[in-house]
Amino acid sequence: MSVLAVGTVAFDTIETPFAAPQRVLGGSATYITLAARHFCDDVRLVAVVGGDFPGDYLAQLRDSGVDLEGLEVDAAGETFAWSGRYHYDMNQRDTLETRLNVLASFRPTLPEAYRDARIVCLGNLDPTVQQDVLRQANASAYTILDTMNYWIERTPEALRETLRQVDCLIVNDSEARQLSGEPNIVRAARTISEMGPQTLVIKKGEHGAMLFTDSEVFCVPAYPMEDLHDPTGAGDTFMGGFAGYLACSSAITPDALRRAVVYGSALASFNVEAFGPARLLTLEAGEIKARVQAFHALSAIPVAEASAFSFV
Amino acid sequence: MSVLAVGTVAFDTIETPFAAPQRVLGGSATYITLAARHFCDDVRLVAVVGGDFPGDYLAQLRDSGVDLEGLEVDAAGETFAWSGRYHYDMNQRDTLETRLNVLASFRPTLPEAYRDARIVCLGNLDPTVQQDVLRQANASAYTILDTMNYWIERTPEALRETLRQVDCLIVNDSEARQLSGEPNIVRAARTISEMGPQTLVIKKGEHGAMLFTDSEVFCVPAYPMEDLHDPTGAGDTFMGGFAGYLACSSAITPDALRRAVVYGSALASFNVEAFGPARLLTLEAGEIKARVQAFHALSAIPVAEASAFSFV
Repeated sequence: MSVLAVGTVAFDTIETPFAAPQRVLGGSATYITLAARHFCDDVRLVAVVGGDFPGDYLAQLRDSGVDLEGLEVDAAGETFAWSGRYHYDMNQRDTLETRLNVLASFRPTLPEAYRDARIVCLGNLDPTVQQDVLRQANASAYTILDTMNYWIERTPEALRETLRQVDCLIVNDSEARQLSGEPNIVRAARTISEMGPQTLVIKKGEHGAMLFTDSEVFCVPAYPMEDLHDPTGAGDTFMGGFAGYLACSSAITPDALRRAVVYGSALASFNVEAFGPARLLTLEAGEIKARVQAFHALSAIPVAEASAFSFV
Repeated sequence: MSVLAVGTVAFDTIETPFAAPQRVLGGSATYITLAARHFCDDVRLVAVVGGDFPGDYLAQLRDSGVDLEGLEVDAAGETFAWSGRYHYDMNQRDTLETRLNVLASFRPTLPEAYRDARIVCLGNLDPTVQQDVLRQANASAYTILDTMNYWIERTPEALRETLRQVDCLIVNDSEARQLSGEPNIVRAARTISEMGPQTLVIKKGEHGAMLFTDSEVFCVPAYPMEDLHDPTGAGDTFMGGFAGYLACSSAITPDALRRAVVYGSALASFNVEAFGPARLLTLEAGEIKARVQAFHALSAIPVAEASAFSFV
């Protein structure tokens, strides 16, 4: 099974209270593909970089088994660059600078070999660019969308059109509230489902994630962590783990979606252990299995012995 | 098995965006006992009211089966009264007025018949008053403590002494951070455990609750609700459901504590469906069982068929 990720490949400059690495390998397509590769051996990347993009970053992606045929190199331009600063509690960040550079004029063209991808991940991009991708992709692909407050505020109509065309939306809780205009998260979820996506995942950072399907709500906690080194890319890593798990499942059922949320959460919990995508490069299958077991232990409600308890 | 609750019995005046009832039956001991009574037929209340406390409020407690031998009536005084206003999203509230009245000089005396209670709930009160209660209670009782930012800030030494003497602390996440001085919730939990309580429950409102014991962390989500009518007393109701469940369990094991957190969460989810403690008065065992089943459905991670998925 195959996963296609369209998004950004970027330089990230990250300030946390503990370190401030410069021009780390970043971008949504980077995190999505590196996470999905742990589940799926056919992971295809569509993005653009400038002539300044270093060969060793390309090698990191290629050596991880990510298909780079769809990575456009705009030799005359500079790579998209983001910088941000995290607050002491790591739950909030300020964007210090965003330089779109080659991303400003990016109109992705899917290589012929990419068009039959089973799972299509639309990383956070202009909703009209996301629609371009959907037009080129396999109509029967399972499509997963990310977006952000910028597009919710600036291009609401284009975003609505994209939402009508996708199977699944993954956003955080403040984006869900903003997109729906509903402060209550359950009503927000129903309002968003009426916009198109049959499946909705709401990420809540340290409070875990919620999955809404037609008939069910599923909640998974966040993995309890004492030391969080760098939250950058956690949301994209979640999407990559979620999509990768679905790609290697026999069918996209409500149970498979639940498990995909757990695998996405597990991958995200690893990613925040190191700066940039470093942890995704060293992560092994045994570690993922153990972390998923920890999620089971964390949320298991033990069944009572019948005799142990009765109501008054 | 028996539950003893020491706390307040009060008049609550509540403003929400939807209604503003005056002088509703309230107070921590009210919610704790009414919740615990759904599990346990021996629920004992210790609190004080003034001469103005209406007979029909007393009847509501008595008719619910709460033992009122420990309810002191200070005929010359007025009952403790609280008023507060909830914001539109119901997650925040402002206290408008607190009149301690008879509570200001309250020094509880446990009736002789109360002293062998198996579970002792110390509702939010002055930590020195909580210590008075502990001195009078059975030394082998399982003791559960609530407190709040007021005592954390004003009487930290007295609170530390109370913490050394209890088995379990139940607080919300901001109180846990304030008490420990740790923004990270996992480190906050460890710091608090070192202060005394072997078991810690951290309530996170719409994000559920976490249970920390020696060796385990357990997370339960909040029940997803579209309409929340009145959050007043949800925390005390949680404590009452938690304590009541433990009182009728055969032993206080890590598994029983997990289930107690689920029952506490279930009771709290009912309580917010109506103003004041009204919902606790009509709640039936079948409803509680169904709600607990809903918590199982909400957090169950399905086990994958072995053939369905493999790592790359």
